[in-house]
Amino acid sequence: MKAIQYREIGKGPELVEIPTPEPGPGQIRLKVTAAGLCHSDWFIMGLPAEQYAYGLPLTLGHEGAGIVDKLGDGVEGIELGGSYAIYGPWGCGQCHACAQGKENYCTRAAELGIAPPGLGAPGAMAEYVIVDDARHLVPLGDLDPIETVSLTDAGLTPYHAIMSSAQKLRAGATAVVIGTGGLGHVGIQVLRAVSPVTVIALDISEEKLSLAREVGAHHALMSDASAVEKIRELTGGVGAEAVFDFTGVQPTLDIARQVVAVDGDIQIVGIGGGILPTGFFSTPFGASVRAPYWGSRSELIEVLDLARTGSVGVHVEQYTLDTAVEAYEKLHKGEVRGRAVVVP
Amino acid sequence: MKAIQYREIGKGPELVEIPTPEPGPGQIRLKVTAAGLCHSDWFIMGLPAEQYAYGLPLTLGHEGAGIVDKLGDGVEGIELGGSYAIYGPWGCGQCHACAQGKENYCTRAAELGIAPPGLGAPGAMAEYVIVDDARHLVPLGDLDPIETVSLTDAGLTPYHAIMSSAQKLRAGATAVVIGTGGLGHVGIQVLRAVSPVTVIALDISEEKLSLAREVGAHHALMSDASAVEKIRELTGGVGAEAVFDFTGVQPTLDIARQVVAVDGDIQIVGIGGGILPTGFFSTPFGASVRAPYWGSRSELIEVLDLARTGSVGVHVEQYTLDTAVEAYEKLHKGEVRGRAVVVP
Amino acid sequence: MKAIQYREIGKGPELVEIPTPEPGPGQIRLKVTAAGLCHSDWFIMGLPAEQYAYGLPLTLGHEGAGIVDKLGDGVEGIELGGSYAIYGPWGCGQCHACAQGKENYCTRAAELGIAPPGLGAPGAMAEYVIVDDARHLVPLGDLDPIETVSLTDAGLTPYHAIMSSAQKLRAGATAVVIGTGGLGHVGIQVLRAVSPVTVIALDISEEKLSLAREVGAHHALMSDASAVEKIRELTGGVGAEAVFDFTGVQPTLDIARQVVAVDGDIQIVGIGGGILPTGFFSTPFGASVRAPYWGSRSELIEVLDLARTGSVGVHVEQYTLDTAVEAYEKLHKGEVRGRAVVVP
Amino acid sequence: MKAIQYREIGKGPELVEIPTPEPGPGQIRLKVTAAGLCHSDWFIMGLPAEQYAYGLPLTLGHEGAGIVDKLGDGVEGIELGGSYAIYGPWGCGQCHACAQGKENYCTRAAELGIAPPGLGAPGAMAEYVIVDDARHLVPLGDLDPIETVSLTDAGLTPYHAIMSSAQKLRAGATAVVIGTGGLGHVGIQVLRAVSPVTVIALDISEEKLSLAREVGAHHALMSDASAVEKIRELTGGVGAEAVFDFTGVQPTLDIARQVVAVDGDIQIVGIGGGILPTGFFSTPFGASVRAPYWGSRSELIEVLDLARTGSVGVHVEQYTLDTAVEAYEKLHKGEVRGRAVVVP
Repeated sequence: MKAIQYREIGKGPELVEIPTPEPGPGQIRLKVTAAGLCHSDWFIMGLPAEQYAYGLPLTLGHEGAGIVDKLGDGVEGIELGGSYAIYGPWGCGQCHACAQGKENYCTRAAELGIAPPGLGAPGAMAEYVIVDDARHLVPLGDLDPIETVSLTDAGLTPYHAIMSSAQKLRAGATAVVIGTGGLGHVGIQVLRAVSPVTVIALDISEEKLSLAREVGAHHALMSDASAVEKIRELTGGVGAEAVFDFTGVQPTLDIARQVVAVDGDIQIVGIGGGILPTGFFSTPFGASVRAPYWGSRSELIEVLDLARTGSVGVHVEQYTLDTAVEAYEKLHKGEVRGRAVVVP
Repeated sequence: MKAIQYREIGKGPELVEIPTPEPGPGQIRLKVTAAGLCHSDWFIMGLPAEQYAYGLPLTLGHEGAGIVDKLGDGVEGIELGGSYAIYGPWGCGQCHACAQGKENYCTRAAELGIAPPGLGAPGAMAEYVIVDDARHLVPLGDLDPIETVSLTDAGLTPYHAIMSSAQKLRAGATAVVIGTGGLGHVGIQVLRAVSPVTVIALDISEEKLSLAREVGAHHALMSDASAVEKIRELTGGVGAEAVFDFTGVQPTLDIARQVVAVDGDIQIVGIGGGILPTGFFSTPFGASVRAPYWGSRSELIEVLDLARTGSVGVHVEQYTLDTAVEAYEKLHKGEVRGRAVVVP
Repeated sequence: MKAIQYREIGKGPELVEIPTPEPGPGQIRLKVTAAGLCHSDWFIMGLPAEQYAYGLPLTLGHEGAGIVDKLGDGVEGIELGGSYAIYGPWGCGQCHACAQGKENYCTRAAELGIAPPGLGAPGAMAEYVIVDDARHLVPLGDLDPIETVSLTDAGLTPYHAIMSSAQKLRAGATAVVIGTGGLGHVGIQVLRAVSPVTVIALDISEEKLSLAREVGAHHALMSDASAVEKIRELTGGVGAEAVFDFTGVQPTLDIARQVVAVDGDIQIVGIGGGILPTGFFSTPFGASVRAPYWGSRSELIEVLDLARTGSVGVHVEQYTLDTAVEAYEKLHKGEVRGRAVVVP
Repeated sequence: MKAIQYREIGKGPELVEIPTPEPGPGQIRLKVTAAGLCHSDWFIMGLPAEQYAYGLPLTLGHEGAGIVDKLGDGVEGIELGGSYAIYGPWGCGQCHACAQGKENYCTRAAELGIAPPGLGAPGAMAEYVIVDDARHLVPLGDLDPIETVSLTDAGLTPYHAIMSSAQKLRAGATAVVIGTGGLGHVGIQVLRAVSPVTVIALDISEEKLSLAREVGAHHALMSDASAVEKIRELTGGVGAEAVFDFTGVQPTLDIARQVVAVDGDIQIVGIGGGILPTGFFSTPFGASVRAPYWGSRSELIEVLDLARTGSVGVHVEQYTLDTAVEAYEKLHKGEVRGRAVVVP
């Protein structure tokens, strides 16, 4: 079968022909209907050899969906021919976090060598993908896999960040969304769907701010030196009860720190390499700072339910396996609007 | 192998010889180290044919522990030779509740014909038992399976009820425990371990009240007409922020209703057939009434952790498969102190 | 000044002339800008003498708003000439519940003889009203008091019921609203504003169902024998994670009991005299039943913030003190659409 | 009356004679029964003139208790002659935070010039103290004010930090307490009283570690380079679900960062001037970092209830107003064991 693999440190993705995999006992094989590209693919392909820990060759694609094509022995509860999305952050399934479906916070995955598809295990950017266990599939039903597949990461990640701060998202509160690209523009939609907060979006491009307004931001501001003061004004001096930074570079974290309210939350979602100095004399009393990771199984079910009611959607550019390498190039150059999805 | 089965409506448990089962793919066979008897076994054996829905013959035992003796194909994360407790309330593993490990509230189990071991599936009261999936096992480690097995139901059930009311169990609050037998005396221990509340225990036997005091109740009162007034006195007129009724008969529910505080919780745990009339003019403003069922996967892990630190323990009477039928008789007559456990 | 008082058991409201009250130390006098009529006014005026406990004469009006007209000695934080809404469920201010602003669940109000305005203390259906403490006022700012005053009860009560079940109101869940009149039609708006749930509204009049759809219900069904089955269908057999019964009569509670999901919530808001039998064999596993009362101080702030963003609104019929008795008559006959508000 | 005041930048506390204050309307005068000294008194007395913002002269004492000696006009719910503790973090009483009794997070106090007694308003280190509102008093009842007064800060502050992380403090979890002096040794007691967690205490003095063990720590370790590895060992590699740093200097925050578990909490309580760099590549996935401040009104009620049941206690050294300056000197030199309390 065709697959997109990362095969050599520093070399970028390649289209290759590899054997079609067979599902072992308890495993499920999907004929891939859609696989999403992600900036974090480039992040790991940019790591030097001594920091790269995902194995080679690596079939890319941690956002995946497909039709169940073959069931390994003993699989129950999964329908042959059914359409499913893949829950990506695979954990051990047994620890306290996994027992609640919070496999994104599995305490044993590293130790046991368990890794998500596309981030260690063979990913979905291929004609077929093996899913290790029925619990890592969520039924799509009538949802279009191409429109939906990005939600397994670009939807689930902001959703989890937002739900982690649910208690702060009361009527009368303000949420600031920094970075309104792939994850951020989904985050705005989630905030509008699940809460009554006022949403203030920040970005450095007028085009992205325009998108932010389209998807529901009440205010959209340039993410510059004036943003802090403007947010203080809009919130009557109080600041934002929750700040979701989908960029995570130092300048945006500096804004986050200055606009968060007393007893508010900062969720650092973007892996931009910034650091937020936390403590008395740096952050407001009671303000918490946290870098959440992906999301839980039940949260993925919920995100797909939001898609089902039309509450969240992702702008998608469609590619094939044959044009996937080209898509990765465009992603790298910042030329993809929304998310790029490969349809084998 | 030997097993204790319910084979005929109205006839009670029997010791029988049946084939030793083989684990299919994804399944695990345990050599049983301990299996607990429970009043609910008698409850279902007392049902008339038209209400009995558990299949015949039924190998009893929904409290089970064992040593992993054989792994079906594809099982991962389970150690051959390891000592495990069985998580009993098996669900579909896929619905929103199951995705959080709350299989006790699975919304599809009935529809799919999924049932707990000993309550539909073959139970642990046998030399060997088949567990359908790795997720239904929790490692016991050094815990004595005989001392511990009852906690999978008689510990998990009160633990879940109590944790459901965790927000009410603050410093200065009062919890009332009605019925201080098998589940109730574990409930008192759990309350003392996880919260700072004052515990008032009610029962109708002085011996049980004495046990209640031994395991940590601050006050132990006869469960009679005077109890309501005494609880009001002990709480300065406010009533109890949480009431756990491990009996669930009409007279105890009537007490629960009269002693619960405004905005308090009543958790009906005992299947005594009582009904609590809820609403304005019947229950205090804001008081909630609920009949919880068993517990979640992560809660079972937590209960076993409580056992590990010595915070909860169960008084156990030990039997063998050969004397199990006799043990059931004693249980029926109310002659078992604490819990009866069969060690094959 | 003019006031509407209940003066004699069984006689109904009267327009009277009484002395204008003076604020004592710590008290605030409002020149009333709006006062809402409520079915519960008729409920207490319908009580026989032996059950009536609100004192006579009683100035009616537990929904009130006004302009601060005079400050008693020592009042701080309240602006003379400012526009405020009155928080109605006055408590002692000192007990554990009041220390969190949950004065609706004050444990000492009855004992201390503290009562809400219009329900013991002199109410807002007059030219002037005395508010006992600054903490019982919430600034209205630019909000129109006539449009807003009803939210202090008809908004706050459903808001509190809904927020009490916030954990159940996740994406993919269903909420059933029974009774879509005064409180119910606000409840639908609140549900849509604060959560992503699907809202199913039930009522017995096509006109009310039409209103329900207008204010955001996804489905609106006749509240008859077929409703249970239809709700099961709409929820894929699961039932509703939350049921808000704004009627509270026996037939609606019977529906609530049959449509609530496992581990779901029933909030009985309407004082219709019904009783919900709760327990095993009556309500689903884990389903909680509760009759909440009014709401907390911070919840009133939040409700008014929802009004500020246009998320909730009430249809209002406007009367004067001179026509208030007539308004009460119409309310009694069910001829008021939405809420009736007196503007002195 | 006699009072201990800070009168001149850089000069330290002085015993002075000042007029006895009179309570205005709504205010209460206490005859002080106990006033606690605190390291933060020295912190503010150490500030240079350009950073000092508390006014001069400043009567010290933000931990106070007393007998109600005189009621201003209009005070209700407070008993003349009753024994009360002062809730210190005074807020506006009207904002969303204050409406929940979280006056420690008041969003308007700074703007309105509202300050706690001893930290802006005249404090309790005097024969009499004025409390601005009845809501800032909590009844002590039979509690000894000398033994109890420190709990209004040294108890409430750790209690609030701990309750903010209540969701992490489940059975099987581990809490690390860094710094087992005044606040830390109360923190250990609170953790043991309100939760089933395993408590690991760190300090740099064997004497303090010995105190930590006495008050309930399961493990007490030297806070040095080996601590991180030892905590990883004790937690099976997982780390601590909650870390409470009562020191807050850079070396202890570095430990906190390295021992916190994935999705765990770090609460920085000690004002040691350290900064915790938070973000991907610095803190574990999902771990939150926060510097809480003091506590809420209902939390103070709860702390006093813990004292009432003997669950928390403070070692107290007793002084008079005449020896208070000397006590401050000893505190400065680190020669006070537990807390120093002035009894006028």
